[in-house]
Amino acid sequence: MGSFHEGHLELMRLTKAECEKCYVSLFVNPTQFGPNEDFSRYPRDEKRDFELAASVGVDVIFAPKVEEMYRSSSTSVRVTRLSDQWEGAARSGHFDGVATVVLKIFNIVRPSSAFFGLKDLQQCAIVKAMTSDFDLDICLYFVETVREPSGLAHSSRNRNLSSTNLTIAPELYRFLIQAAHEIKSTADAIETCKANLVRSGFLVDYVALVNPETMESITENVPGSRIIAAVRIGGTRLIDNVPVESQ
Amino acid sequence: MGSFHEGHLELMRLTKAECEKCYVSLFVNPTQFGPNEDFSRYPRDEKRDFELAASVGVDVIFAPKVEEMYRSSSTSVRVTRLSDQWEGAARSGHFDGVATVVLKIFNIVRPSSAFFGLKDLQQCAIVKAMTSDFDLDICLYFVETVREPSGLAHSSRNRNLSSTNLTIAPELYRFLIQAAHEIKSTADAIETCKANLVRSGFLVDYVALVNPETMESITENVPGSRIIAAVRIGGTRLIDNVPVESQ
Repeated sequence: MGSFHEGHLELMRLTKAECEKCYVSLFVNPTQFGPNEDFSRYPRDEKRDFELAASVGVDVIFAPKVEEMYRSSSTSVRVTRLSDQWEGAARSGHFDGVATVVLKIFNIVRPSSAFFGLKDLQQCAIVKAMTSDFDLDICLYFVETVREPSGLAHSSRNRNLSSTNLTIAPELYRFLIQAAHEIKSTADAIETCKANLVRSGFLVDYVALVNPETMESITENVPGSRIIAAVRIGGTRLIDNVPVESQ
Repeated sequence: MGSFHEGHLELMRLTKAECEKCYVSLFVNPTQFGPNEDFSRYPRDEKRDFELAASVGVDVIFAPKVEEMYRSSSTSVRVTRLSDQWEGAARSGHFDGVATVVLKIFNIVRPSSAFFGLKDLQQCAIVKAMTSDFDLDICLYFVETVREPSGLAHSSRNRNLSSTNLTIAPELYRFLIQAAHEIKSTADAIETCKANLVRSGFLVDYVALVNPETMESITENVPGSRIIAAVRIGGTRLIDNVPVESQ
């Protein structure tokens, strides 16, 4: 996307460590924003982004204009099943836009490997499925979320939080970790987590235990399962997720 | 597809002439058949297809099993605009299936060039749009339809025609050519063509003058425009099209 933060920089550092050349896309993609979403208000600071990317040794920044990327659009990627729930239900057409732009960037840049952050867990599942479904010969790396010292996941949208809400926001991670601890022994760990979040002042869109391959809600922990959540506070929507097993 | 005929062989010969290696896909794609269509009855003769391909010097035949091609399918290609009319209207989902399998084959084979027959004009428009929309670095060749001495376009479905209908079927091409001659001077050339086809015993699905880039119906001839038609006779559906300018 853009407005690089420590989560993006970590992806760049890992790419530098693993690959011969590190290409970074810098593109706020209009087709993944819904009609009522904040495309025009999405934070942009290209000069700072270029400086940050240079500071970690990025070789190429791919920063096309919208009109260069979308000359016409008769064909796009459609995501089914994996996009029915969670962020896909909340943001109609979002993942079609994500998958289409990722495919385009893959075809333009032709990477051997590509790195994505696990904060967007459903996006990771969709990119993984698309890479398999479309027979793309690309090695995918999914990288654990980078957090502030408070535990809050790095996100471009954090800057929209008021100073009061910045003190509340880290509770999201704290309650997810607590649920991940409890879920192996307590049937109502998810419900407890929701209640804790509401008590802290969040509006809860969802909290769920999911299989990260299928993104389906599950009732019993399986290897690799994660707890996902989307909440709102002061008009800002935050998503986060944690693995169960490493807790 | 499969059941190679002279039209396919001409594509193979041209590929051999233009390219270092000639790869041919031999795959009856289930996702481009509708629920009421003839996937299971579609003519198949792999042994003969291999022999025919060998006879024109094909280097590689890519003939995957259905379960190898579609291990899962959370993501597919969606075609809009270009698939709203004509074959897309008659065969819901057909062009999504076509575009998806063409993208998969492109990604597996990684050709520098690809050859398609103009008999499937709308398919050509969609492959061209997808190649541009998805930033594929592939040179596309669209090859004029190969015909029987009678003028009937080669098609796997011709074998379904009774001997009587085989004598009527070439009238389709004859009336299209006539319409292409007349269209520059006569406003009702398309209507005359439809009436002629009905009189010959065809059920007419559509006849239209189109811009082959957009597949939109047009009222005045433009460079490159073509007359397209779909008709049915004795339960067999035939499509064909001719250029206006070269008439």
